[in-house]
Amino acid sequence: MEEALSPKAMREKIRKNEWPGLTAGLTKGYVHAGVTILPRKEALDFMIFCQRNPQPFPVIDVTEEGSPEARISAPGSDLRTDLPQYRVYEKGIMTAEVTDVKEIWRSDFVGFVLGCSFSFEEALLQAGIPVRNLEEKKNVPIYVTNKQCVPSRMFQGPLAVSMRPIHGSRITDAIRITAKSPLTHGAPVHVGDPSVIGIKTLEHPDYGEALTINNGELPCFWACGVTLQVIASQAKPELMITQAPGHMFLTDIRNDQLAAY
Amino acid sequence: MEEALSPKAMREKIRKNEWPGLTAGLTKGYVHAGVTILPRKEALDFMIFCQRNPQPFPVIDVTEEGSPEARISAPGSDLRTDLPQYRVYEKGIMTAEVTDVKEIWRSDFVGFVLGCSFSFEEALLQAGIPVRNLEEKKNVPIYVTNKQCVPSRMFQGPLAVSMRPIHGSRITDAIRITAKSPLTHGAPVHVGDPSVIGIKTLEHPDYGEALTINNGELPCFWACGVTLQVIASQAKPELMITQAPGHMFLTDIRNDQLAAY
Repeated sequence: MEEALSPKAMREKIRKNEWPGLTAGLTKGYVHAGVTILPRKEALDFMIFCQRNPQPFPVIDVTEEGSPEARISAPGSDLRTDLPQYRVYEKGIMTAEVTDVKEIWRSDFVGFVLGCSFSFEEALLQAGIPVRNLEEKKNVPIYVTNKQCVPSRMFQGPLAVSMRPIHGSRITDAIRITAKSPLTHGAPVHVGDPSVIGIKTLEHPDYGEALTINNGELPCFWACGVTLQVIASQAKPELMITQAPGHMFLTDIRNDQLAAY
Repeated sequence: MEEALSPKAMREKIRKNEWPGLTAGLTKGYVHAGVTILPRKEALDFMIFCQRNPQPFPVIDVTEEGSPEARISAPGSDLRTDLPQYRVYEKGIMTAEVTDVKEIWRSDFVGFVLGCSFSFEEALLQAGIPVRNLEEKKNVPIYVTNKQCVPSRMFQGPLAVSMRPIHGSRITDAIRITAKSPLTHGAPVHVGDPSVIGIKTLEHPDYGEALTINNGELPCFWACGVTLQVIASQAKPELMITQAPGHMFLTDIRNDQLAAY
């Protein structure tokens, strides 16, 4: 069963195109990460942008120019082949969805491995805090807010957030737990009234699907990596490659290592 | 009195060459930082090196290419003039010590503002933990260890550590306090027997001065920014500018903000 495979074994399977699908449920206990690949020309400005906006863009690992190996977070990996599905953006516009990027890889590419919310959802569940998007088997709803990221040259634009409803009695715990892991977006950026951060209605998320909010629950908003799509459409980098949604990079880092990583 | 001036006012004084000296004791409660300036060509590799070695190289702020303003940590600042004394390295060798770098500033320079141990010494004192180098009015002793930094292309070499003796009854507190601030080097990398990390004798530090170690105290070793000098002598970047020792950059960030920064 694929579910029991190690990250390394699973990456090899994906490399051979034997796993075209979503990565949710795979390599339990290990960090799933987003990947952003940029030419060196834009990589420094993007890395500064990440440093200035660590909540949406928590940097776990960066590859050296031209090397496709994420050798800190996944020794022996190959970012050209080890994600099940990629999206290619030219000047901020998605132009292709592919299963590897061997053909378009260039010697000036730099890859960023970025934390995502999979790990903190696992931590919430372990603490007995229900995660509604998992309960309802929906894609987590994502909203573009009126909060601006701190710009770095061409990289600028609004913050996108994911929303999970949390019962008032567990909000303290949910904050405490997620605050411990800055590399998976950290604590919520906002709790409660969505209008305060420029969200008109929770009914119509910009990405993903709306979730049921029960009595006694408040919407909790976490910084979200989808911010990159909004930013890229404005920054228009010459070329940018990311994971397709839900098709993450499977690292060798255990979730419980990440807090101290 | 200079001691009472705000970081902004003090930076302006330094900019006008009205304060040529050490920065210790100035802008109490605010973060003092190291500065490293590199050409863009080497800046990305260095930033990746910092990301891989956050204990010796905690990045507080990075300037955009050509801009001398550290606009996140010190809006309105000018890294060309706002440090009392600079050191210029050509191919890893120190070739000049100057009070400003206006003449040699280039449009491809990128500046890194890096956390230093001043802030955590203040936190230790506040908790009633004596700081021996301050008690004995000596420069903290620094030792080159046998621990290697995680390399990033040409940036590689051994970790340097600063040593402060701490009484056995306060080691837990000292670790707890410094662990809270990863941006000022975080918790010790080693406690006790120096030989384990390749230090033959505490009597003869590689930089700074030896300190008295009393009965019941153990040497505690923190990652140290001086690592950069060792690294630079091996990496030989074309040009590198840093603060002269003890002549730090005075930021607008309060020490108690840094943990959450």
